[in-house]
Amino acid sequence: MSHTHDLAGFLAGLRYADLPESVLLRTQELFLDWLGSALAAQGAHPIPLFEAYARHMGPASGPARILVNGAGSSAYFAALVNAASSHLVEQDDLHNSSVLHPATVVFPAALAAAQDLGKSGRELLLAAVAGYEAGIRIGEFMGRSHYRIFHTTATVGTLAAAVAVGKLMEFDSEQFINLLGSAGTQAAGLWEFLRDAADSKQLHTAKAAADGLLAAYLTRDGLSGARNILEGEQGMAAGMSRDAEPALLSARLGSRWALLETSFKFHASCRHTHPAADALLEVMQREGLEHGQIARVLTRVHQGAIDVLGRVQVPQTVHQAKFSMGTVLGLIAVHGKAGLPEFQRHGLNDPRVAAFRDKVGMQLDPEVDAAYPARWLGRVEVQCVDGRTLHGAIDEPKGDPGNGLSRAELEDKFQRLLQFSGARTPEQGNALIRRVWALRDAADLNSLL
Amino acid sequence: MSHTHDLAGFLAGLRYADLPESVLLRTQELFLDWLGSALAAQGAHPIPLFEAYARHMGPASGPARILVNGAGSSAYFAALVNAASSHLVEQDDLHNSSVLHPATVVFPAALAAAQDLGKSGRELLLAAVAGYEAGIRIGEFMGRSHYRIFHTTATVGTLAAAVAVGKLMEFDSEQFINLLGSAGTQAAGLWEFLRDAADSKQLHTAKAAADGLLAAYLTRDGLSGARNILEGEQGMAAGMSRDAEPALLSARLGSRWALLETSFKFHASCRHTHPAADALLEVMQREGLEHGQIARVLTRVHQGAIDVLGRVQVPQTVHQAKFSMGTVLGLIAVHGKAGLPEFQRHGLNDPRVAAFRDKVGMQLDPEVDAAYPARWLGRVEVQCVDGRTLHGAIDEPKGDPGNGLSRAELEDKFQRLLQFSGARTPEQGNALIRRVWALRDAADLNSLL
Repeated sequence: MSHTHDLAGFLAGLRYADLPESVLLRTQELFLDWLGSALAAQGAHPIPLFEAYARHMGPASGPARILVNGAGSSAYFAALVNAASSHLVEQDDLHNSSVLHPATVVFPAALAAAQDLGKSGRELLLAAVAGYEAGIRIGEFMGRSHYRIFHTTATVGTLAAAVAVGKLMEFDSEQFINLLGSAGTQAAGLWEFLRDAADSKQLHTAKAAADGLLAAYLTRDGLSGARNILEGEQGMAAGMSRDAEPALLSARLGSRWALLETSFKFHASCRHTHPAADALLEVMQREGLEHGQIARVLTRVHQGAIDVLGRVQVPQTVHQAKFSMGTVLGLIAVHGKAGLPEFQRHGLNDPRVAAFRDKVGMQLDPEVDAAYPARWLGRVEVQCVDGRTLHGAIDEPKGDPGNGLSRAELEDKFQRLLQFSGARTPEQGNALIRRVWALRDAADLNSLL
Repeated sequence: MSHTHDLAGFLAGLRYADLPESVLLRTQELFLDWLGSALAAQGAHPIPLFEAYARHMGPASGPARILVNGAGSSAYFAALVNAASSHLVEQDDLHNSSVLHPATVVFPAALAAAQDLGKSGRELLLAAVAGYEAGIRIGEFMGRSHYRIFHTTATVGTLAAAVAVGKLMEFDSEQFINLLGSAGTQAAGLWEFLRDAADSKQLHTAKAAADGLLAAYLTRDGLSGARNILEGEQGMAAGMSRDAEPALLSARLGSRWALLETSFKFHASCRHTHPAADALLEVMQREGLEHGQIARVLTRVHQGAIDVLGRVQVPQTVHQAKFSMGTVLGLIAVHGKAGLPEFQRHGLNDPRVAAFRDKVGMQLDPEVDAAYPARWLGRVEVQCVDGRTLHGAIDEPKGDPGNGLSRAELEDKFQRLLQFSGARTPEQGNALIRRVWALRDAADLNSLL
C-alpha cells in the first residue's frame, strides 16, 4: 500500500502556501462554474425531492446553506442537496483522464463542512485542491474497466469529497488513511439507470458528497477504516476494476497539478458528446454547410462513449437528450449550439433535430480509443446530400485546458446558468462573481452566498 | 428483467393475511433477537460516534427512537444508529444460503420508518417479512463470487432495508421496481476492513439501513430508479458478481418463506466459525476431552470461511477475535462456550486461549464447500497429545432452523445481551419481551420501547 501511503502523506502535508498561483486562480474559476451549475437546477426535478428529504430528516436550521432554496441545515444535508443540484444541468466540470466530475462532489462537501466548521476562503480552496488531486488520481487508478459499469463520479467521488472535508479538518496522514477506508467502503453508483433515463445521476452525486462528508466527521471522531481500501485484496480495485494501476495514485504528487487539467463544459450535454459536437461544428463552419445538406454523420469515438451513450436511441426526457449523440449533433447542426436553452426548447420537440438525430451513428475508432481518456479526440465523417464526404476533426474540445474558457466566457456561462433557472438576477450574479473572485480573502463562508 | 418484475409484483401484492402463523411467530422472535443485539452495543465503540453524528447532523428531536440512548430523532438517523448498534456484538441473525444478516438492516429501517409514519405492529411485521424475502433472494442471486469481496449485508442489505420501508409505504409494483433501482445503485461495502480490524462493519450496516430508507422516501416522492438494477448490463450483478443466477430472484415466491430459514446466532462470533465450534464441542463432549489433551485442530471449512477469517492471525481487538477461528475454538475448548462474556474476559487476555488458538488450522474441504452456502457443515479433525486422531462433525450448527433456539432460549439470550451492556434491567427486559410477543396487537410502535 505504498502508493496509498504516499497519497495520504501528500494530502496531510499540503499547505496553502504550496499552491501555485495558477492553481488558486483555477480553483476559484472551478468554484464559480460549480456554483452556477448548482443554482441552474433550482426548481427542476428531482431537486425538490432532495430538498423535501432534508426538511423531513434534517434540522430546521443550521450553519450550512442549501443553495437552491437558501435554507440553513446541517452540513450533511447541505452537501446532499447541493451535490444533487450541481450535476443536473450537465454543465459541471470534468477531468478527462479520470473521467471524474470533481466539482459536483468536492465543492458541496467542502463548502458545507467549511460553513459548519467556520473555515475561511483559503481553507476552502486548499480543501478543494486536496479533493481534486486525490479524486483525479483515484479515478485514474480505477481505470477504464471501472467506468464501464460504475459511475466514477459516484464511486470515486465519495473519496474525493471525503478528502476535501478531511483537509478542512487538518487530518494527518494516519487520519487520511482511515478516511479513505471509510469513504472507499461506501463507494457506489452504477450506470444502469441511463437506459431508463432514471434520476440516479443526481442521487449518485448527492450521496457521494454526503457520504464522503460523513466519513470525514466519523474519522475525526475516531472511526477507523480499512488501511488499504484502494489496493487491498478485498478493496475497491479488487471488487470493481480489472485494470487498476496503483502507481497512478502517487505519481507526480506536488509537481503535477491534476486540477489544472480539468475541463469546463461548454455544451450542456454529456461530455462524451463534446468532441464530436466540436468536430461537426468545425467541418460545418469550414465548409459553410447547413443541416439540410447533410445526409449522414458518422462519429468516430472511444469505447467509453459507446458504453455511456449507446443505450439511448430516442430520448424521452431533456436530461436523457443530453446523452443522445444524435440529439446533441442535431442541436449543433440546426441551432449552432447545444446549450441549456437549446436543450430545453428543441431537445425533444424540434422535428429537424429529431430528423438529424436519426442520421447520426457512432463507431469505435482505434486512434480515438487509444488516446482516451488522456485526450478526447473529436472525429466525424459527414456524408453530404450532394455525394461529398467531408471530415471534421478537433484534438481539444472547447473547455479543455488547451482550449479553455476565459474569465469573461466563464462569467457569461455563469450568468446564463442563473438566468436559465431564474435563481438570481444578473445583478445578484455579478455580486456573486465578485465574491468568488475574492474568495481567498473571505474570512468565512457564511456571507459568501 | 422478468425475475425482478416478478419479485416486485410479489412484494406489492403481499398482504398480512397471506403470512402463515409460523412466519409471524418467527418474525417476532427475529425482532426480539435483533432488539437484544442493538441494546447490547450500548456504550461500546464505535456506537457513540454514530450517536454524536446523529446529534450533530440530525434534528434535536423526532418520532423515531435511537435505541442505545433513548433519544428521538428523524427516521434517517434512528435507522443509521440502530443498524450500527445491532451488528456490533456479532449476535444478530444470519441467513445461510444468502450469507445475509437480515435483521440488522431490515429492522432498523423498518422500525424507524414505522415510528415516523405512525404504523402498527402488524404493518411492521409485514414490512419485515417483505425485507427478508427480498433481501435473502437478492443475496442468493448475487452469489458466492460477490461475497468474496463484498459484504453482502452491506450491499444487498441496502435493498432489503429499502423494501421493508417501501412495504410500510404500501408501494405498488412499479414503485418497488424504482425502489430497487435507487437502493441498488447505492449498494456498497467491501471486506477489506477485516484485515485491519477496522470499524467498517458497523458503518456498513448503518449505511445500508439508512440508505435503503432514503431510497424509499425519495421513491415515494417520485424519484425514479434503474428498472433493471439487478440483472441489467450495467447493474449490480454485472459490476459485482460473476456467478449471479437471476432465477433465484423469483423462485418460489409466496410458497417458500426464506425468513423461516434464518439462523439465530448462538456463539458471539462470526457465523463462519460456528460449524467448527459446534463440531469441536461435539467431539470434546463425546470423548470427554480437556483442552490440554489436544495437540492440534484442523477445521475443514468452505472457501467463504477462509476468505473472511483467513486474514486474522493474532486478533488485536475483541471484535477481531470474533473473526479468529483459533480464538473461537480456544474459548470453546477452555471455557466451554464463546459468548459475549467469554470474548470480553478471555478473548484477548487468556494465555490458554491464545495457546489453543495457535493449534488451530483451516483447510478447504470439498464436501463442506459443495454444501455451502445452503448448508454450513462443521468438520474438525482433532489430534490428541496421546497420538489419537478424533473427528467431530455436525450438520446443523446450533441456531440453524433444524437446530433452533426455543422461545425460552431466545429470552435467555435476550436477557444476557441486555445484561452485557447494562442497557436494561432484567425486569425491563421482561417487559420488552412481553411487548414483542404481543407485537401484532400493537396499534403503534412509539410505546413499544
